[in-house]
Amino acid sequence: MCDACVIQSVKERMLSRRDFFRAAAVGTAGIAAASMGAAPPALAEGHARVTDLTHELHEEFPTYFGQQQFFREQKFSFAEHKFNLFELRVNEHTGTHVDAPLHFSADGLSVAELPVEKLVVPLCVVDIRNKAAADPEAQVTPDDIKSWMAANGEIPENACIAMLSGWADHVGTDKFRNADADGKMHFPGFHVEAAKFLLEETQAAGIAVDTLSLDHGISPDFATHYAWLPGGRWGLEAAANLDQLPAKGATLVLGAPKHRGGTGGPARVFALV
Amino acid sequence: MCDACVIQSVKERMLSRRDFFRAAAVGTAGIAAASMGAAPPALAEGHARVTDLTHELHEEFPTYFGQQQFFREQKFSFAEHKFNLFELRVNEHTGTHVDAPLHFSADGLSVAELPVEKLVVPLCVVDIRNKAAADPEAQVTPDDIKSWMAANGEIPENACIAMLSGWADHVGTDKFRNADADGKMHFPGFHVEAAKFLLEETQAAGIAVDTLSLDHGISPDFATHYAWLPGGRWGLEAAANLDQLPAKGATLVLGAPKHRGGTGGPARVFALV
Ligand SMILES: [Zn+2]
Ligand SMILES: [Zn+2]
Repeated sequence: MCDACVIQSVKERMLSRRDFFRAAAVGTAGIAAASMGAAPPALAEGHARVTDLTHELHEEFPTYFGQQQFFREQKFSFAEHKFNLFELRVNEHTGTHVDAPLHFSADGLSVAELPVEKLVVPLCVVDIRNKAAADPEAQVTPDDIKSWMAANGEIPENACIAMLSGWADHVGTDKFRNADADGKMHFPGFHVEAAKFLLEETQAAGIAVDTLSLDHGISPDFATHYAWLPGGRWGLEAAANLDQLPAKGATLVLGAPKHRGGTGGPARVFALV
Repeated sequence: MCDACVIQSVKERMLSRRDFFRAAAVGTAGIAAASMGAAPPALAEGHARVTDLTHELHEEFPTYFGQQQFFREQKFSFAEHKFNLFELRVNEHTGTHVDAPLHFSADGLSVAELPVEKLVVPLCVVDIRNKAAADPEAQVTPDDIKSWMAANGEIPENACIAMLSGWADHVGTDKFRNADADGKMHFPGFHVEAAKFLLEETQAAGIAVDTLSLDHGISPDFATHYAWLPGGRWGLEAAANLDQLPAKGATLVLGAPKHRGGTGGPARVFALV
């Protein structure tokens, strides 16, 4: 290697090491270059830090409708049968999950039809934690996206734009739904104008929120869902650990379920840095 | 860049381009460097080809037990409610899916407890298509793994070793289960001695098969499941598109479901090259 390459290589190693120690927290792990084998490009060339953007799913996981949406029944047990096996029953829109275009359209793409090149994509994290802490009705606006662009450059093709509202911290408490006496919920989301801005000005593939809905909780009409999903884009709801990631530079891997005709479903979601 | 670096870089570009065209088939997509944004290491540095190792799941997907294991019920429809939503009922061991240690142990790790650094791992593809075409009872043996090592070097830490038997081509026909008049199935799998070899000689994280079971179909005793899973390793069953991948150099992303206490479940699985 020439000097420039050596310096670049050392810089990258230092960067990744710093990231590793900084983020050796919940759901994050470092993968050493040495373990990746030799030669080929991309991941194998270097190293990736994996951050788990998925909440654990269980019977009491908070839901948009407020009723339990995940159930399991043990069909075989080790004590009796020498192996364990459960049957699951789950509403597609439960836990950390995907909204496919078909969720809010008559004949949009099902979750199984989303092209794979739209599932491994650049991740842009829009941090609205300050205003969300002050106001649970806070929304990602076109101005928030423009501020991100001023700091970080263009929105890459096929990107996922994620709202970091800080709401993932509330997942174990009533604050996650934040329902008032009338049952109305109060949590942040994407403003419909932000969705329209992304549709008109970018080639983004998806948007993600760390709350229960793409629309903010108080929304009476799912305006953002109706603006965004029918255009062939996907949504990700109840994402975890977005606060572990840089504003720019991570790659989102959306492990969407692949059941025929599905409108979405619980997903395993990683970010690679 | 110095000459050596330029040459290496050009080689990698050519390699990736060739791979891209060769594999611009089902379930594979190229992601251009330009779309990944600037700077950070790993994926963003270069480009990744994404191969989908997941079969579409539907009501008639073949199962080990021979009975339907995936059901769905429409709870909301666009025509009536202006949005679509299904409730799913699924046996954990259905479709392209993960076996967690808990599946074959009293108290092994659940699928939600698998560490993320064991879910984004180097992939070693062991091609036994020739012997499997000649004999459906074929198994991956220690010698097959040693041959892979002779050609490709050590098994990397946390690797997934995948059996490519060619059986994924049969997923739409009775040949996938290949049951005889007595109901006994005939398809390839991992020999228990291969599992033991991997446990003793490597730090592999998982094994994968393109058939319905880690054990070959005729196995009376799940010997490979019992040898492999309780040691904290995972299995992947009914993987698709392994024939699109190099023997070495791909990174497997195991999008395992993350439900509490789960013994496994349908997964979204990608390979990045
Ligand atoms: Zn949803
Ligand atoms: Zn299984």
